[in-house]
Amino acid sequence: MYYIGIDVGGTTVKAGVVSETGHIIYKAANPTVIGDEVSFINGIADLIEVILKGANLQISDIQRIGVGCPGGVDAEEGVVVCAGNLGLKNFPLRTKLEKAISAPILVNNDANCAALGEYHALRDRDISSFVMVTLGTGVGGGIIINKKLYTGYAGLAGEFGGMIISQEEKGNWEHFASASALVSAAEKAAYENHKSVLFSLIQQNGGKANGEIIFQALRCNDKVTETVFRDYIRYLGDGIISILYSLRPQVIAIGGGLSQAEELLEPLKKHVAENSNWLKRKKHTQICKAVLGNDAGIVGAALLKDYT
Amino acid sequence: MYYIGIDVGGTTVKAGVVSETGHIIYKAANPTVIGDEVSFINGIADLIEVILKGANLQISDIQRIGVGCPGGVDAEEGVVVCAGNLGLKNFPLRTKLEKAISAPILVNNDANCAALGEYHALRDRDISSFVMVTLGTGVGGGIIINKKLYTGYAGLAGEFGGMIISQEEKGNWEHFASASALVSAAEKAAYENHKSVLFSLIQQNGGKANGEIIFQALRCNDKVTETVFRDYIRYLGDGIISILYSLRPQVIAIGGGLSQAEELLEPLKKHVAENSNWLKRKKHTQICKAVLGNDAGIVGAALLKDYT
Repeated sequence: MYYIGIDVGGTTVKAGVVSETGHIIYKAANPTVIGDEVSFINGIADLIEVILKGANLQISDIQRIGVGCPGGVDAEEGVVVCAGNLGLKNFPLRTKLEKAISAPILVNNDANCAALGEYHALRDRDISSFVMVTLGTGVGGGIIINKKLYTGYAGLAGEFGGMIISQEEKGNWEHFASASALVSAAEKAAYENHKSVLFSLIQQNGGKANGEIIFQALRCNDKVTETVFRDYIRYLGDGIISILYSLRPQVIAIGGGLSQAEELLEPLKKHVAENSNWLKRKKHTQICKAVLGNDAGIVGAALLKDYT
Repeated sequence: MYYIGIDVGGTTVKAGVVSETGHIIYKAANPTVIGDEVSFINGIADLIEVILKGANLQISDIQRIGVGCPGGVDAEEGVVVCAGNLGLKNFPLRTKLEKAISAPILVNNDANCAALGEYHALRDRDISSFVMVTLGTGVGGGIIINKKLYTGYAGLAGEFGGMIISQEEKGNWEHFASASALVSAAEKAAYENHKSVLFSLIQQNGGKANGEIIFQALRCNDKVTETVFRDYIRYLGDGIISILYSLRPQVIAIGGGLSQAEELLEPLKKHVAENSNWLKRKKHTQICKAVLGNDAGIVGAALLKDYT
């Protein structure tokens, strides 16, 4: 038997046929159709046909389909309560999609699906509690407790980006710790320091920074970048400390493009160790990189039923 | 059948005989014996005899005994891993107590027991997720998820006081939001403003502030106290916002002496509403006062088995 996982993003819809063990057999992507509900559903249905064909399967081979959507999702009702960047409000995604595709549909938040995918990737380790934090435009997350997805009241748990870590205005975590926050801080510092390596690299890139440029400047020992990055690690680490004290999961996985850089994890762990009781007990939370990259949402969506 | 709940504190051990529905039949307290493990266990055993006699029961009437202890507790092993203020380290409390008392013993963290007690008090409302935050010398807490106590890896979840809410040094929540933090801030402000009502009230009380004095000064519209309290509500609210975004429980209950004052809950809710998406969704977390006061720990300890 096979599953289908669909990861709906603001710009792209990704879909994959997934095996019972959580491996992607075949995957494809299409631009997200925004603004017209009928075309939105048809876009997903077309993509499902594409991946079925690619995997050489029929819809009857598919046990169920999971869909991860951004924003507030009422998983019980299969309704997208509010997804601003998709232009959807109180949209009965499950009902609509079940009319187009003859397979059982499950709907959940995209960050929850990504967390499930990453949790599933650790299935050999018998982990009971798990938190995934994703660094992107904002900071998202998902929580697994007692081996099940925990979505909180009305499906809104795991929105770690909203935690307060500073008494400054807009002092929430994602304002300081998202990938976008790092890029903005780097651009600001570069424009204030025209002699820095960072400024040159940004100039070469049409005036815009990105993660790659920042890590390149760090490898050149650029002082301006080092300061920006040290502050970023402190902000990022402070939110991880809050998660540690409140949830104390067995594993915290960090996802998003930045998380894969060698430069991130070790200083992050150092900050957390120096500013919390993290390592002071024999059994301590493991802080690690997410491993599935962009596939996490597809895998997690496909396996939703196993973990909810 | 009856249960016994024991709440071990740094200065007092409280114990009660509890009915199946969670009502305290009879309770008593003794000073905590610190420094000698044998006397510590004997002190608890003596107290159990006292409450059995008071309730006119035999030990054979007791189905089980639950003990809540401060610090790190390994509930599975029944071991107090580390409770500094009791002078205990890796202390096999369950085994020792089972030798003195012929009843099954369960051990957990005291804040977790208090949270369970408060959760049980809401049992008629079919609540699935619940967080208790207790304002005392520090800020403690407990988490109920899917109607069960969630203790995290190695039993350390719910230590909300360790969350970071400020980029100042020692920027953790309890440094700003504990009852002790409010009292210290009030004393500092009073000594800087000798003409304030707060200063007079503190002087009358031998130079020390307390919650009662602070609320009395607020009722006199003392500007100095109003400023201190406004800051306190902001700090307290910021941590509640972090809990809201990360866990989104159905109910957050605030416990500890301060929480019972009329002046606390409404401004707290106002701050949370103005600085989060709390009320922006149809289904929103309820923020309320804890109701059991000092009995919460006894009730929760007695009912541990039902919720673990």
